[in-house]
Amino acid sequence: MSLSGRQLRSQIDDDGRLTLFLEQVETGEPEDDEIIVRVEAAPINPSDLGLMFGPADLTTMQPVDDHRTGLRFDVPHRRLASVRGRLGQPMPAGNEGAGIIVAAGKNVSLAIGSRVGMIGGAMYADYRRIKAQEAIPLPPDATAADGASIFVNPMTALGFVETARREGHKAIVHTAAASNLGQMLQKICLTDGIPLINLVRSQEQADILHRIGAAHVIDTREADFAARLTDAIEETGATIAFDAVGGGTLASDILQAMERAAVRRASEYDRYGSTVFKQLYIYGVLDLSPTTLNRLAFGFEWSVSGWLLIPFLERFGPEVRQAMRDRVVRELKTTFASRYTRVIGLAEALEPDVLRAYERKATGEKFLIDPTRG
Amino acid sequence: MSLSGRQLRSQIDDDGRLTLFLEQVETGEPEDDEIIVRVEAAPINPSDLGLMFGPADLTTMQPVDDHRTGLRFDVPHRRLASVRGRLGQPMPAGNEGAGIIVAAGKNVSLAIGSRVGMIGGAMYADYRRIKAQEAIPLPPDATAADGASIFVNPMTALGFVETARREGHKAIVHTAAASNLGQMLQKICLTDGIPLINLVRSQEQADILHRIGAAHVIDTREADFAARLTDAIEETGATIAFDAVGGGTLASDILQAMERAAVRRASEYDRYGSTVFKQLYIYGVLDLSPTTLNRLAFGFEWSVSGWLLIPFLERFGPEVRQAMRDRVVRELKTTFASRYTRVIGLAEALEPDVLRAYERKATGEKFLIDPTRG
Repeated sequence: MSLSGRQLRSQIDDDGRLTLFLEQVETGEPEDDEIIVRVEAAPINPSDLGLMFGPADLTTMQPVDDHRTGLRFDVPHRRLASVRGRLGQPMPAGNEGAGIIVAAGKNVSLAIGSRVGMIGGAMYADYRRIKAQEAIPLPPDATAADGASIFVNPMTALGFVETARREGHKAIVHTAAASNLGQMLQKICLTDGIPLINLVRSQEQADILHRIGAAHVIDTREADFAARLTDAIEETGATIAFDAVGGGTLASDILQAMERAAVRRASEYDRYGSTVFKQLYIYGVLDLSPTTLNRLAFGFEWSVSGWLLIPFLERFGPEVRQAMRDRVVRELKTTFASRYTRVIGLAEALEPDVLRAYERKATGEKFLIDPTRG
Repeated sequence: MSLSGRQLRSQIDDDGRLTLFLEQVETGEPEDDEIIVRVEAAPINPSDLGLMFGPADLTTMQPVDDHRTGLRFDVPHRRLASVRGRLGQPMPAGNEGAGIIVAAGKNVSLAIGSRVGMIGGAMYADYRRIKAQEAIPLPPDATAADGASIFVNPMTALGFVETARREGHKAIVHTAAASNLGQMLQKICLTDGIPLINLVRSQEQADILHRIGAAHVIDTREADFAARLTDAIEETGATIAFDAVGGGTLASDILQAMERAAVRRASEYDRYGSTVFKQLYIYGVLDLSPTTLNRLAFGFEWSVSGWLLIPFLERFGPEVRQAMRDRVVRELKTTFASRYTRVIGLAEALEPDVLRAYERKATGEKFLIDPTRG
């Protein structure tokens, strides 16, 4: 059985224009180990926006109706080089989602009519054909909305904790900490007894974290931010940070606070800085500007690195990955509950006002696409 | 037997002044496993200058003759915080050196009158008491000048190669590559068959490296620097860099060139950048300004870290360390030969004109202190 349905795509052409449009596509027959899922829910994550809009200038948005129907944007010429690899290719969007199995290959044990969560891209669509082993069966009481964000945020939050543990750190610093991901991380850390220092940028964000039991919440806009961060690091012994911001001096400020806390504890002066190893992982791009490291303030025992979910999951190995998936399913309605502020249809994602709203990434707002709404 | 001799010291006081002076000190009796060495040669490395002058403003140099006799400098107030740990402490200088054993504890097998190379600080002195196992016996035909730089540069160059090998990289990028250290690294890489891309800042530096057989030498001042570096990386497969500069965008430029080379080889577009892991180690501070990372140009598979000799030697373990020491002794007059342009006495190091000359760190210039000259 092959099914025909819509798929949201983003394409940048050689002329420097990005088009976001719906394409009618055939799923094709499922292979023996594949299923076809009717998508009922797919979240809009920051990483999805990266693929949908690339380096386009969103202020140039215009409706278009030529060989494609949708929205068109200009990509500034100087930014085209960074996306050379995708020019002329229609990129289907939507990292993860959930839905009902409507067809299955002969080797598949999952039942038609049952609900699964999925990772793998192209989820902003009516149907998604996928390998059964890449789908996670949802518990019977879970809605599609419950299972839509089963992968990226939960596995990333668990991945941070696993990374910290493997690399020998006993407490964690997290930036942009009031996000859905940040709240999951805080809940995991409370359960697992790992001190977490949350960095936020508003009282509203601090309140979100305090309500779920956060012990350390520091507002980076406060005048005594550096001093408070240093104190919290000295108290908890945090030597690893996960940073969603990336740009500016925040990463450097965190490493400097870790160094100051280490020097306070050191018994003798070392001109090369403390002997405490400090690791900062950048996993997001909330600030697109360059990262500025005032490295003279934190010696030589440090590392700043990119952190990306899939390669880290590979490193952990199959057993740890399975244990992580099992925990996500088990705690789907507690630790890993996602809250959506607005549910939209697939066609609505191409309405200019709706697009501007989900693109804004405001604190506490989270959109879910439900293609069954039209 | 305890011996009395001079020792060069640097002290920063609470009032923000740094004094460089000679102090008459007693070695004390050697312990059972210790030797006393009469120092005959100790090089002035950039890392020694860091301890001697700290963050002082060298233009404020003045002779001083109060309770200490030497030279005095102002430390700008805003830089005092970075050296709080050493305030009021006399810091003896000189990382490494060589000399003749003049006394030994009863458990020492090295012969009095034999020559050794040493690491451990306080080498700008007439005598150095030290554990015998921290001294490296020199071959009979080696002068003190031959053995004076037996540790820092040779072990660092070998440490780079060992780091690259352990972390799975097959070719290396090196900055400020015409230094004594850089020349050693080039010789090792030629012997071991590891492609090395040398980055320099002048034709004179390029000539030095070409003369010893370097295949890849690129001048960072040239207009086509980025393109040439990308080509050389694509040709060699370099995915690790050791950077002595640290400040500015050079580190970022290298990672970007590695990413471009990786993307050229990639078969499909990945919005998170290439899947090739890129490592850059900063081991020097030739440029004190902040490190600026344009990380959007090199995806998420990267790490920028500090590299410091002693912690990395610890990681390698005793067998690898011993093999490295053995190789240095074996190739002391070839691979690891150091060239000195000027030999000065210990008192001369405090003469203003001499100080300005060795502090300048000009290409190809290297100073050796011989305390026996006075």
